[in-house]
Amino acid sequence: MKLKRKDLLSIEELSVEEISFIIETARSFKRVNERDIKKVPTLRGKTVINLFYEPSTRTRTSFEIAAKRMSADAINISVSQSSVKKGETLKDTALNLEAMRPDCIVLRHASSGAPAMLAELLDCSVINAGDGMHEHPSQALLDMMTVLERFDSLEGLNITIVGDVSHSRVARSNIYGFNKLGANVTLCGPPTMIPHGIEEMGATVEYDLDRAIRGADVIMMLRIQLERDRVPLFPTAREYADRYGLNLKRLKGAKEGLLILHPGPINRGVEISPEVADGPYSLLIDQVTNGLAVRMALFYILIGGPSESEHEAEEPDSNGKERGTA
Amino acid sequence: MKLKRKDLLSIEELSVEEISFIIETARSFKRVNERDIKKVPTLRGKTVINLFYEPSTRTRTSFEIAAKRMSADAINISVSQSSVKKGETLKDTALNLEAMRPDCIVLRHASSGAPAMLAELLDCSVINAGDGMHEHPSQALLDMMTVLERFDSLEGLNITIVGDVSHSRVARSNIYGFNKLGANVTLCGPPTMIPHGIEEMGATVEYDLDRAIRGADVIMMLRIQLERDRVPLFPTAREYADRYGLNLKRLKGAKEGLLILHPGPINRGVEISPEVADGPYSLLIDQVTNGLAVRMALFYILIGGPSESEHEAEEPDSNGKERGTA
Amino acid sequence: MKLKRKDLLSIEELSVEEISFIIETARSFKRVNERDIKKVPTLRGKTVINLFYEPSTRTRTSFEIAAKRMSADAINISVSQSSVKKGETLKDTALNLEAMRPDCIVLRHASSGAPAMLAELLDCSVINAGDGMHEHPSQALLDMMTVLERFDSLEGLNITIVGDVSHSRVARSNIYGFNKLGANVTLCGPPTMIPHGIEEMGATVEYDLDRAIRGADVIMMLRIQLERDRVPLFPTAREYADRYGLNLKRLKGAKEGLLILHPGPINRGVEISPEVADGPYSLLIDQVTNGLAVRMALFYILIGGPSESEHEAEEPDSNGKERGTA
Repeated sequence: MKLKRKDLLSIEELSVEEISFIIETARSFKRVNERDIKKVPTLRGKTVINLFYEPSTRTRTSFEIAAKRMSADAINISVSQSSVKKGETLKDTALNLEAMRPDCIVLRHASSGAPAMLAELLDCSVINAGDGMHEHPSQALLDMMTVLERFDSLEGLNITIVGDVSHSRVARSNIYGFNKLGANVTLCGPPTMIPHGIEEMGATVEYDLDRAIRGADVIMMLRIQLERDRVPLFPTAREYADRYGLNLKRLKGAKEGLLILHPGPINRGVEISPEVADGPYSLLIDQVTNGLAVRMALFYILIGGPSESEHEAEEPDSNGKERGTA
Repeated sequence: MKLKRKDLLSIEELSVEEISFIIETARSFKRVNERDIKKVPTLRGKTVINLFYEPSTRTRTSFEIAAKRMSADAINISVSQSSVKKGETLKDTALNLEAMRPDCIVLRHASSGAPAMLAELLDCSVINAGDGMHEHPSQALLDMMTVLERFDSLEGLNITIVGDVSHSRVARSNIYGFNKLGANVTLCGPPTMIPHGIEEMGATVEYDLDRAIRGADVIMMLRIQLERDRVPLFPTAREYADRYGLNLKRLKGAKEGLLILHPGPINRGVEISPEVADGPYSLLIDQVTNGLAVRMALFYILIGGPSESEHEAEEPDSNGKERGTA
Repeated sequence: MKLKRKDLLSIEELSVEEISFIIETARSFKRVNERDIKKVPTLRGKTVINLFYEPSTRTRTSFEIAAKRMSADAINISVSQSSVKKGETLKDTALNLEAMRPDCIVLRHASSGAPAMLAELLDCSVINAGDGMHEHPSQALLDMMTVLERFDSLEGLNITIVGDVSHSRVARSNIYGFNKLGANVTLCGPPTMIPHGIEEMGATVEYDLDRAIRGADVIMMLRIQLERDRVPLFPTAREYADRYGLNLKRLKGAKEGLLILHPGPINRGVEISPEVADGPYSLLIDQVTNGLAVRMALFYILIGGPSESEHEAEEPDSNGKERGTA
C-alpha cells in the first residue's frame, strides 16, 4: 500500500488504512534511531524546507533531525511575526521557495488552512506542522503510535483530553484520529475552553476532571498557553492547577494501567504535576521518540523512493507515477 | 576558460567573457536542480559560510541550498544590527572565521565595499551577496541569465529599470551587466529616487513611466522599501503605485513579447500589480530558479575542483595554482 | 589510552594524561583542516545538538563546523533568555532532546553547573561550552594547545591572566589547566574583578599590570564585557584601557618571545590595543584554528568509534563498552 496523496494536511482527510500504514512505517524508522549509525541514504538529493511562521524549537528540531537522518538536505526558515507584516505574502514566499525545487515544505503557520493553500499551489509535498487552531497531524500520529505500543488496538478505549480544547490543534487532530481508530473520546476543561457543539466531532464533554479521569484508559493533558497575552480563559495558573491539573491525588480514582500523554512542552505544576509527568504511566518521552519516527515515515512516504530496497538507485520518473494528488 | 579571480565582488569588474562563462556554467547546474536526485559531490569537504549582516531569507536560502546540493558544508551566521554595535569589527570576525579554514564566505553587509575589504584580507573566496548601495552581483547574473533564456543576445535590447535606483544595489549591478552585454538601459522613477549624474554609468533617464515602457523589451521593477524608516522619498504607497506601479493598463502601451523582472520580494499592488506579477510575461519565478543555478555556478567556479570529471579525486595542490587574485 | 568518561564538563576533573591525550588528538585533526577536502567520515550517522542558552556566534560556529567536518548531523538550537522564562525547564528540554537519540549535546548556559546536571540526567555525551561563571573547558584546552605549539612544555612557564577574573569561566578553566600542566599562574586586574581567596586555586594576584607583565612567558587578556548592563566594575572603558589594557608601550617591559592570548571577541583599544592584537606575538588566530581542532578531538574521543582505522565499520555494541561514566 502507498499513500495516494502528495501532502499531509490533516488527520481528518486520512483513512484508517492510511493512518495504520504511516504508523507501521514509523515503527521501522524507530529502529533506525536505535542504531549506533542513525542514518539511511533514502532521501539523498532531496531538499526539505522547514518553514516556520511560529517559533517551535521542538517540532522544528524533530523534522530537521528526521530529514537529516534520512540524508536529505534540510533548510530552516523561521519567519517572525514582525517580518510577516512588512514582508511578502505566504503565497509569494511559497512560489519562490518552490522555484528552488524543494521536495517537501514543512509549514507551521498561525492561520488555519495555510498548509492546504500551499499544497494546492505547489507541486512539491507539504506537511502541516500545525496551522492555527486547525490541525497538527504529525502530533496526532505520534500520539496514536504511542498508545498503540501499549494497547493492541484503540477500539473501545476511553481517551480523555483535558485542557484548552478550543485553541488546540493537537486536540482537534487527536479527536479525528482517536475516533477513526474506534476510541471513545471525552473532552474536559473549563467551559470557556470547550467549544460549543464540539460533541458533533464525536466526543463527550465532561467539565469535572475527577469524573473525566474515572474509567479513562488514556489521559492527554494539553499545554496551557501561559505566554499568550490574550484575555485569560481562567483566573490564575494556580486556580487552573487546582481544578484541571493532573496530580497524584487525582490519579487515585483512575484505572489500573492508565496512560498519560502530553504534547509538550509541559508547565510543571500547572496542567500536570511533576510527580505525574515523571511517573510510571507517563509516556511523554515515548511521544517525542515516536514523533521523530513518524516524521521520518512521513518524509519516506511522501517524498521517498518507489521501493524500500532501492533507495540509492531511484529512477527519476517512477517517483512521479506513484504519487497521485490529494 | 576559468575565472582568474578568487572572489566575486561586483559586475563592474567582470569581463563579458567572464559573465558569459558564469551564465553558461549556471545552465548546466540548472539541469542538476531538475533531476530527482538533486545532488552532486563537487564540493564535498568544502565549507561555505553565509555571513549575513542584514536579514535576507531568500538570498541566504538560495546560497544555502546551492552549497548543500553541491555537498559542501554550509554554515549560516546572521548578525543583527544590535550585536554589531557592541561586537567585534567585521575584520576581526572575518579573520576569526578564516582561522577555521572555510573555502568561501558569502557576505551581505550594509556597508558598501565590505566584501572587497574581506576579499583583500582573506585567502578564502568571498562572494558579495549585497553590500550597501553598491552591488549585488549574483542578482544581476541571474537577471541576465533569465533574459538570455528568452533572447539570443542582449545586444541592442531596450531594458528599463523602474523604482528607487538611488538605493538599489540590484539596479547598479544590472546597469553594469546590461551595458556590458550591449543593451540600452533606461532608468525610471521619481526624481528623488534617480541619482544625479547616473547617466554617466551608461543609462538614459526617463521620469515618465508610460514613456519608459514604450519600446522596452524588458522592464525590471525594483522593490520599494516600505519597511525602512527613513525620510520617505514619495508621499504614500498609493501615490507611488499610481505614478510608478506597473499594471495591466500601463502595459497596453508596451511592446509585444515584453519581459518583466523583479528581484523580489514584491509589494503586490505597490510597484507591481498582482495581475502583472502573475501574468504571462512575468519571469519572477524563473529568476529565483536561475538564481540558485547561478550561485551553484559561482561556488563551482570559485572553489570547485580543477576538472569537472574528477570532482572526487581533486588534488589539493592543483586548486591553488588555478586561482589568481582579483 | 581512551578517556573513561562520557562527558567533558570541566578542566578541574581532567587528569594531566587526559589533557595531553585530547591535545594530541586535536593535533591530528588540525591536519584534516589543512587539507583541500576537509572531511572525515568518522561521525557519520551521529547527531550533535548545539544547545545554546546564551548567544555565541563563534563558539557555536566552531562546534558546528567541527561536527560537520566529521560528517555528523549538527542541529543548532538557540534559546533566548525571554523564552527561557516562559518555557519548559532545562531538564525537560534535555529529556525531550535525548528522546530523539542525539549522541552529544553541546551546552552553553548562564547557570554554573547546568552541563553537569544534564550529564547526570542523560545517557548521551554532554560537552560544556561555557556555563555561568564556572568553566569553559574547550577554550582552556585550545589555549593550552596553542601555548604547547610554541613551548615544549608548560612546566615552569609564567602565565599571566588579565581582566575580569571574577566573571570569567575562561579564566577559571585556564587556571585549572595551566596549574595541572605545571605553569605558574598570575592573575591581574582591578581589585573589583579579582575574587577574594582566588589564590587558593593556585594563583598569585598582582594588581599592577606592569609588574604582572614582567617575567611572563604568556599573557592572556580577558574580554571586558562592555555589553552587560550590570553595575560597572570600573569607571569607563577609557580608564580601564589606561590601567589594564595591553599596548606596545607596556610590552616594552616584557620578556623576549612573550606570547599573547585572548579568547575573543576582542575589544580593540580597550583590553588590547590594535597593534598588540595584530602584532607578531599575538596568537589570537592560532587559538581559533586550534579551537576547531580541539572540538573535533572532543567529538572523536567522546562519541567517535572504537578504532581510528575502522570509522565506517563501527560495531554498535563495542562503543558502549568503552565508555565509562564521569
